[in-house]
Amino acid sequence: MNRVAIGASTAASALPATVPQPRLLLLGTGTVGSAFVERWQQLARRGLALPRFGALANSRGVIRCGEDAGEALRAANRAPRDAAATNFWQNGHGCDALVADPIVAVAAPMGDFASPRPGDIIVDATASDAIAARHAPWLARGVHVVTANKLGTGADLLRAQAVARARSDGNSRYGDAATVGAGLPLLRSIRELHAGGDRIHAIAGVLSGSLAWLFDRYDGRQPFADLVRTARDGGYTEPDPREDLSGEDVRRKLLILARTAGIALEAHEVAVESLLTPELAAAAPEEVDATLSTLDAPLRRRHAGACDQGARLRFMARFRYDGDGRIRATVGPEALGPTDPFASSGGTDNRVAIWSDRYRDQPLVVQGPGAGAGVTAAALLDDVLRVVAAG
Amino acid sequence: MNRVAIGASTAASALPATVPQPRLLLLGTGTVGSAFVERWQQLARRGLALPRFGALANSRGVIRCGEDAGEALRAANRAPRDAAATNFWQNGHGCDALVADPIVAVAAPMGDFASPRPGDIIVDATASDAIAARHAPWLARGVHVVTANKLGTGADLLRAQAVARARSDGNSRYGDAATVGAGLPLLRSIRELHAGGDRIHAIAGVLSGSLAWLFDRYDGRQPFADLVRTARDGGYTEPDPREDLSGEDVRRKLLILARTAGIALEAHEVAVESLLTPELAAAAPEEVDATLSTLDAPLRRRHAGACDQGARLRFMARFRYDGDGRIRATVGPEALGPTDPFASSGGTDNRVAIWSDRYRDQPLVVQGPGAGAGVTAAALLDDVLRVVAAG
Repeated sequence: MNRVAIGASTAASALPATVPQPRLLLLGTGTVGSAFVERWQQLARRGLALPRFGALANSRGVIRCGEDAGEALRAANRAPRDAAATNFWQNGHGCDALVADPIVAVAAPMGDFASPRPGDIIVDATASDAIAARHAPWLARGVHVVTANKLGTGADLLRAQAVARARSDGNSRYGDAATVGAGLPLLRSIRELHAGGDRIHAIAGVLSGSLAWLFDRYDGRQPFADLVRTARDGGYTEPDPREDLSGEDVRRKLLILARTAGIALEAHEVAVESLLTPELAAAAPEEVDATLSTLDAPLRRRHAGACDQGARLRFMARFRYDGDGRIRATVGPEALGPTDPFASSGGTDNRVAIWSDRYRDQPLVVQGPGAGAGVTAAALLDDVLRVVAAG
Repeated sequence: MNRVAIGASTAASALPATVPQPRLLLLGTGTVGSAFVERWQQLARRGLALPRFGALANSRGVIRCGEDAGEALRAANRAPRDAAATNFWQNGHGCDALVADPIVAVAAPMGDFASPRPGDIIVDATASDAIAARHAPWLARGVHVVTANKLGTGADLLRAQAVARARSDGNSRYGDAATVGAGLPLLRSIRELHAGGDRIHAIAGVLSGSLAWLFDRYDGRQPFADLVRTARDGGYTEPDPREDLSGEDVRRKLLILARTAGIALEAHEVAVESLLTPELAAAAPEEVDATLSTLDAPLRRRHAGACDQGARLRFMARFRYDGDGRIRATVGPEALGPTDPFASSGGTDNRVAIWSDRYRDQPLVVQGPGAGAGVTAAALLDDVLRVVAAG
């Protein structure tokens, strides 16, 4: 797809023809990756100056991209499974071997590919730990990384710190708007407050759109499992809803928020109360649907307990300092009183409150759609455009 | 005050000693200007790398700043009134004549001063129209402008467009975070959505902390005038509360939001319903306090009308497109039903909802302290730090 610049020029459109143009290298062609290509095409049709795709990759291989990113996407999703390509996700080395020749759209085995060049932009629309482990090495080589994959900065602390160091060296940029709140001004606001001299005192919020929806709908009468099935079928949860119900995804998001605020928080320092029953946690994937019903009784009891206090159940993430200055980080269901700002419903919205030096008593509150392929893809493309604008 | 850099270096601290350092030139030493100096001193004590003050100016003259910005501030507020200096605000030309020699802290008449240099940062903490008229010429000369003064972009459209053109040329930066929401991520979010390809569909919100407080407290029983006096005495309104009650300040903020979204909105296109009675509008300054009581009856009637509908009164600003694609912009009191997201109380918080391509059904909502010298000064200093970081 030709890059037509109308309106504000960007650094990419200003590069002389002899300098290699930055390429987009998309990893992951599932829901989010596909939505990313789709939004890229929409914006390109409207004349925004965008970097072109070099290649699209998924666990089945790599498609070098020609004029039509949409065609490459379809080819990537049709490609047969290949043993060498499967290694791609398992060891991450395949990611270094991405195509140098953007003209021909073909599927090719890993061995044909050259490494990403400094100035290229890798877009990580996967949930792969092996790929997340490559974020810092890529940054160190001058390759920009724009990610929806939370495992770069929301998992192991040492890895998150390696990313932080590599991004602060200034040779390359790391766009993470899509990791928490799908582009809501959350990470950006924390970063700006920190840069402006404020220390972050506390963070609290609803970070999971799926759990927000579930607890908003749940009235203690219908079986909780029925609601979970409805949510899963409607795409509000992961295909395996245990990923949402365990609270692990929320833990990662809280870690990213706290680390963005400059706090070196370890995963184990976040106390997570999972909603999973032992039976559900232990179930094989094909047994999950039948085992969801083990949720019903515990949730009904918890709901009744909340009602007795005149409270609402919400799945909350919290970070604060206690009276002795120690960090307290929790994730789990809570019974919130009617005047609690988080008790009122926000549908599937994320809602986050941030307390800092200047927002000591009344916090900054940001709310909005924080999940879904559309807003996640838009957040990724926002970050790509920021990389290009920064030159 | 020496600039000590600890931690992240900034462009300012990296400049070689022979290049003239960017100077802060503060206009306005009232509540906001004083809070700005105070926050500068706090951050400097904590080791942040900050540009030094060149001079402080107010309607009484200009103080060239030496080592101690606080001393210069006190001198500026003690200086005798001077006829030449009074011209400063009336014609704006005095602003061009700001001191070149930062070493000696003395009050001096306008004629002694040289112009701001490219790279200097003018901080406009005034409400002067003449000074706002200089924003675009300063930008065009490579002087950065950081402003809490809304009259640069929130008044005449041609002037706002001149500022927009000058800032897009890229030679200088315009920081306006302090004009709407005192640093809340409002203008920034609109700008980012726009840069990311989204079109803004609608904006709605509570943009006045003082009016939010008044309508939050008002229950139709106590005289509205009593609440206004309490608010004024507590610093929640301007010294002349008619500035808040007229809705003009909210009009300016709505204009700034819409124009940031790329909409060339004229002031007269905003339909403002003022709360002022004819008597109050016509009163001389010394008669205002006595004439506030003319508000009581009309507000009581309006409140009763809202109650009959089970609604709450809120002072709202709205921007949207109607069915024919025409712009509808309104400012004024509204009766909001109990399920309206703006009906619930937020104290003196600003609360703004933004609808765009990606936030089509559920808007982005930002809420928090949007007024007061503390957050306004912090927003100004945030913008100063961004100018410095951009190099």
